[in-house]
Amino acid sequence: MQYRIGIDMGGTAIKAGIVDENYQVVYRHSRPTGQGFERVVADMAAAAREVAEMAGLAVSDFPCVGVGTPSCINPNTGRLVFSNNTNWRNVPLREELEKHLPVPVYIGNDANCAIIGEALAGAAKGCANVIMLTLGTGVGGGVILNGKLYCGGDGMGTELGHTPLIAGGYPCTCGINGCLESYASVTALIRQTKEAMEAHPQSAMHAYCREHGDVSGRTAFDCARQGDAAALAVVDQYMEYLANGIGGLVNVFRPEIVLIGGGLSGEGDYLLKPLNERVKKYVFASDIIGVPPIVKAALGNAAGTIGAACLDQM
Amino acid sequence: MQYRIGIDMGGTAIKAGIVDENYQVVYRHSRPTGQGFERVVADMAAAAREVAEMAGLAVSDFPCVGVGTPSCINPNTGRLVFSNNTNWRNVPLREELEKHLPVPVYIGNDANCAIIGEALAGAAKGCANVIMLTLGTGVGGGVILNGKLYCGGDGMGTELGHTPLIAGGYPCTCGINGCLESYASVTALIRQTKEAMEAHPQSAMHAYCREHGDVSGRTAFDCARQGDAAALAVVDQYMEYLANGIGGLVNVFRPEIVLIGGGLSGEGDYLLKPLNERVKKYVFASDIIGVPPIVKAALGNAAGTIGAACLDQM
Repeated sequence: MQYRIGIDMGGTAIKAGIVDENYQVVYRHSRPTGQGFERVVADMAAAAREVAEMAGLAVSDFPCVGVGTPSCINPNTGRLVFSNNTNWRNVPLREELEKHLPVPVYIGNDANCAIIGEALAGAAKGCANVIMLTLGTGVGGGVILNGKLYCGGDGMGTELGHTPLIAGGYPCTCGINGCLESYASVTALIRQTKEAMEAHPQSAMHAYCREHGDVSGRTAFDCARQGDAAALAVVDQYMEYLANGIGGLVNVFRPEIVLIGGGLSGEGDYLLKPLNERVKKYVFASDIIGVPPIVKAALGNAAGTIGAACLDQM
Repeated sequence: MQYRIGIDMGGTAIKAGIVDENYQVVYRHSRPTGQGFERVVADMAAAAREVAEMAGLAVSDFPCVGVGTPSCINPNTGRLVFSNNTNWRNVPLREELEKHLPVPVYIGNDANCAIIGEALAGAAKGCANVIMLTLGTGVGGGVILNGKLYCGGDGMGTELGHTPLIAGGYPCTCGINGCLESYASVTALIRQTKEAMEAHPQSAMHAYCREHGDVSGRTAFDCARQGDAAALAVVDQYMEYLANGIGGLVNVFRPEIVLIGGGLSGEGDYLLKPLNERVKKYVFASDIIGVPPIVKAALGNAAGTIGAACLDQM
């Protein structure tokens, strides 16, 4: 029986999990993310020890510890190159964490961990060529080529959210204007929803928000399902952006399958059915060479833990 | 001494070449591209025999024959899937050509052949991770990962010209609106130049065209060099499109080097110097992780012949 440890280092919580040989997360431990690099590193080590103890083991009984985090990571140097959340720049995450732990540490981008999890045990199980978009606060991207995680030539690539969708368009958090992320993230959808609400004071979205609270990624989708015209237009345009972006990525990678993860994937078939149809017009020669299916990721947040735990295998 | 045969099958000419062990094209034979699939296949076989004879050899003395063509190719099945020039769809190019020749045939997209040539013997020699854009009638794309040609999961990918630049924008020849190709090809530059000339009747570009003939990809660049304001604006906008597109590809692939080939690469440093500067603002975290150099391809048309001849090695 081979257990593995995976850690999600997020902006609000450090979540450690034990993953068994069937890629199930069998023990979980979570603690709030503290302030400062040294503190966070010490807390991650403590979380690894804690979750190991829950399994009746010590960290030294494990082959390694894997960490996934929503940051630009250099897997070759083990450095966290850039994090929007913490504003850390080029910190030696692997090296410092290894000082606290008796086993090798692997670090990876959270979107890369998610696709590893999905490829090993989720919606892309058995697929050798996969792309995944995680639609949340940002748009995370992961790519698997020939069964292996692809990280770009120097390890810091596959920033699929930071490819152009509308050059010169809406400012992205990365500093570039018009990235896919600035049109297809949940953050972008919320912006698009607010703009539509402002333009359409009669839209049912106003009543929806009075009932449910602030505008969220669900506002437009829920009201579109009820037939609200302004909400339908928001969802229509959002799907078009997403289909166009996915089409371009298919033209580059020609994967067997495209996975959609993150908060927005919760919309399920209401999102995915039209998306599978619409993407055809954005895929080069799609009538001849076909279009891969766009499928909802299967594992939710567990994918990141599983993928982090298995970073050394990819 | 190992000689190889490479064939460029273009819209106007079939060009066969013998490539020596130093990747030099040592014999060349060219004939016009005829009409119809069977005729073109027979002509390619004849061109291979002709160029072999020029070297005092027979085709059976060669390990294989490689063919590059500006089409969507399935390297796994050997089928030419789609060609804009000839409107061929899903024809068994390799199979038919092998009926005429005593050795195995390899077929590839022309942009892929060009990057192979450049990686083996040109501007990307010794580089393991390369992307190349060929700026001509269209925008061809090639990708080398870990020293091997990458063709996408099913072999029909790396259509870098058919990724979004301005979603919903100018119609591309592929049927999608707003592709990189529809803003960064020479065809697009000519359109942009004509639009600027129409808007600026006093531009020096009018006199330039009276002297040099029809608007070409050189019109705006040559007049910009002379300081014409309208031409400078065309070149400025064109470079911005190109920089934005390249930046997105760098964010995905993080190559060691980006090559620019095709007719427009003839502009040399006047294009490449500002491009290297401008691309920085389109590369994710460029101030921390750096930007690969954008370099002119070195081999011109020979790259395609060399790459076709060496398709079996990649």
